[in-house]
Amino acid sequence: MHFDTHSLAAADRLYRLNLINSITGIKPANLIGTVSEEGRENVAVFSSVIHLGSNPPLIGFMRRPVGDAPRDTHQNILDTGEYTINAISQSFAQQGHQTSAKYDRETSEFEAVGLASEYLPGCKAPFVKESRLKFGMRFVQEIEIPLNGTALIVGEVQSLHVEDQAVSASGYIDLQALDTVGISGLNSYYRLEKVAEFPYARA
Amino acid sequence: MHFDTHSLAAADRLYRLNLINSITGIKPANLIGTVSEEGRENVAVFSSVIHLGSNPPLIGFMRRPVGDAPRDTHQNILDTGEYTINAISQSFAQQGHQTSAKYDRETSEFEAVGLASEYLPGCKAPFVKESRLKFGMRFVQEIEIPLNGTALIVGEVQSLHVEDQAVSASGYIDLQALDTVGISGLNSYYRLEKVAEFPYARA
Repeated sequence: MHFDTHSLAAADRLYRLNLINSITGIKPANLIGTVSEEGRENVAVFSSVIHLGSNPPLIGFMRRPVGDAPRDTHQNILDTGEYTINAISQSFAQQGHQTSAKYDRETSEFEAVGLASEYLPGCKAPFVKESRLKFGMRFVQEIEIPLNGTALIVGEVQSLHVEDQAVSASGYIDLQALDTVGISGLNSYYRLEKVAEFPYARA
Repeated sequence: MHFDTHSLAAADRLYRLNLINSITGIKPANLIGTVSEEGRENVAVFSSVIHLGSNPPLIGFMRRPVGDAPRDTHQNILDTGEYTINAISQSFAQQGHQTSAKYDRETSEFEAVGLASEYLPGCKAPFVKESRLKFGMRFVQEIEIPLNGTALIVGEVQSLHVEDQAVSASGYIDLQALDTVGISGLNSYYRLEKVAEFPYARA
């Protein structure tokens, strides 16, 4: 199957959306937790969380164009400066996905989908209790992508909580042991099975 | 296991590197193919390829700080304006990983690791013949992240090649059917098994 710029542009809008959302490969499945200045909790699934650097420990994620829809996560991060990122395991993938529905600002997605919030030292924002790998973030910078009105939200890791048995002596996290899932496109979920660990490559 | 900013900063450098490289979850495994103005081919594994938008179809990836090491991929993209992104399947994951070794600029990683290059209509840069999902890119913009000297390289999809049987009627790509792998940290590879396809979520 081959596409060029013309056949891509001519494709059905939803078909193209699904296709282009799928071509980069597997994406991490994370829930971002925030709280408004008035104390209203929010949690939403994101598949765009990305490692930006280890020293300082910087993590990014993409926000959609402002004005596209209510974006409580973005507003809460700007208002409070803090958020949490929580890995999704297979056991609560359905609830995690359900957070992508457009609930109104008064509704806590935690309550609506049946996930528990928890507060941990050093972070004002709520974590997802069910998550087995989660970290607290401090907002650092928003880097706009002028071409399509999206932006990369950059933050620094402030705290990290992960189940002991999943962390190797050298610091690697075993995603299979945590039953972490990945996302393809907008709604396909994949479980992960470790097949290889290659040594540092030398020429 | 818990870390705060102090215990993270105090951790062994390599341990912290592995840990922070692992916390975002599964990452896509892609090979980026380029060619220099003199016609020297280059291919290198990247785990930071990210969907930025579908209309126009924009894809990004992170480049490391300039001057960190020879960065043929980056230089070739700036020089020629084109590159390819090729999904890694399990059958050639080892060769794909081996492209991360520091070969000198005169060496083609295609030859060094045993992958075949191929040229397809509408793109000057080489594709990876073994890849079952690949797309040609036109360089659009480099967006610097001042905090750590990295940058997001933004490009637009120009062409797409994917095996017919992996594309659904609605445009989704089945990553398991293509035996596509994911990466955790720097060197752990995972195979993907589709476990759920959830409907568009409604409140």
